[in-house]
Amino acid sequence: MPRYLLVLEYDGAPFVGWQRQQRGLSVQEALERAVFAFCGERATATAAGRTDAGVHALAQVVHLDLAREFPPERVMGALNAHLAPHPVAVLEARRVEEDFHARFSALERRYLYRILNRRAPPALLRGRVWHVIGRLDVEHMQEAASRLLGRHDFSSFRAAECQARSPLRTLDRLWVERRGEIVEVHAAARSFLHRQVRNMVGSLVLVGLGRRPVAWIEEVLAARDRRRAGPTAPAAGLYFAGVRYPGLAFTASPG
Amino acid sequence: MPRYLLVLEYDGAPFVGWQRQQRGLSVQEALERAVFAFCGERATATAAGRTDAGVHALAQVVHLDLAREFPPERVMGALNAHLAPHPVAVLEARRVEEDFHARFSALERRYLYRILNRRAPPALLRGRVWHVIGRLDVEHMQEAASRLLGRHDFSSFRAAECQARSPLRTLDRLWVERRGEIVEVHAAARSFLHRQVRNMVGSLVLVGLGRRPVAWIEEVLAARDRRRAGPTAPAAGLYFAGVRYPGLAFTASPG
Repeated sequence: MPRYLLVLEYDGAPFVGWQRQQRGLSVQEALERAVFAFCGERATATAAGRTDAGVHALAQVVHLDLAREFPPERVMGALNAHLAPHPVAVLEARRVEEDFHARFSALERRYLYRILNRRAPPALLRGRVWHVIGRLDVEHMQEAASRLLGRHDFSSFRAAECQARSPLRTLDRLWVERRGEIVEVHAAARSFLHRQVRNMVGSLVLVGLGRRPVAWIEEVLAARDRRRAGPTAPAAGLYFAGVRYPGLAFTASPG
Repeated sequence: MPRYLLVLEYDGAPFVGWQRQQRGLSVQEALERAVFAFCGERATATAAGRTDAGVHALAQVVHLDLAREFPPERVMGALNAHLAPHPVAVLEARRVEEDFHARFSALERRYLYRILNRRAPPALLRGRVWHVIGRLDVEHMQEAASRLLGRHDFSSFRAAECQARSPLRTLDRLWVERRGEIVEVHAAARSFLHRQVRNMVGSLVLVGLGRRPVAWIEEVLAARDRRRAGPTAPAAGLYFAGVRYPGLAFTASPG
């Protein structure tokens, strides 16, 4: 069966997350319904990263198999037409080999976390950022972030519901930058534990606010205990920002 | 009575526009209700630019008079608390002299128009951009834009409902730039005719798509006839981006 790769952008706010669930509409279900409306096939979509409720995507990669062969531009156009009621867009569609797997073939995943750092609450970025009022010291956050790089047991930043077999992960990049009122945290790794990015950001913000010293982040990491870290940063600020595969990379940044 | 200046950010999508109307909630009414909830006073808010339904603000300036004197930070905090159900935020509040007038004291108004120029429809920028699929030639748009600068009769870009006494306006700046998939049009003038920015953008896009030559814009301007220009660009792409007053300026850019 022909396999298709799709790159998706979505606003996570109205969805229960990527994955199909009884309790509401998921991005996966919206996409699979659009596929059915397009060609009458009941395909299963597999994503590079299974985002939580409220988490957005700038460049989520998905694969699915269809019995029939279609020009990829036609798949893209038809799915966008059927997805129109939802804030989900297919940015790109292409045919891939049958051994391509959106999740298991991924070499690197990228996330972006956006914080609106000002006194006034967000109006235009409502539901798209974490609003943090106190002035964040981005240099301190960056210094703390650099101490999390490399291969570690990230149990202190792992959600209780995490289903990964091992808490060991290799964090390739974690950097913090200010763009005016927005503080961005960029993270890249082959894979992440459940809520790892949001949990790391929650701790980095405590450092940025001066409530914890930079060196505290090392104690948290060494403790391998979720209770030692900061709070989980809200879903609204998180964006699945891209995936790299052998010879193939997809990434995007917010407008 | 103490006069207060407020700088507002808002998402125009859920509103009937800045100005109070019978047919739905305006930004003005949302703000005036928040003032009443805060201090029990029925103040009238006057804005630098009366935005249409669906038009956003990055830095709208408003003045209003209250019988009592409050610390401006308290006014800002209280109004943001009462405005929380709506996508409107007070970015700044300050006391100003009684001869300050948000509308009549303005020396320059700035607008930003954002076009998402790609094949896929917007997901994260839904309601915040005009989606134009064909590749825009930004250099041609910029060349056409430069021919509109200066003092002219802008009747060709004026809405039928425009209440201004004269169609003469001095356009100080109009420039076009690409930032990845976004094409931005920036406009600055002491004042604009009703829908002037959206009507100019509609014509610039015809040039950018190659449907009209650059020199056509001069014919349109000279004709002083709205029927000669391009379509009105959608409200969703327009942002009131700032105002300059004697010795005082307010501006902001999207995140």
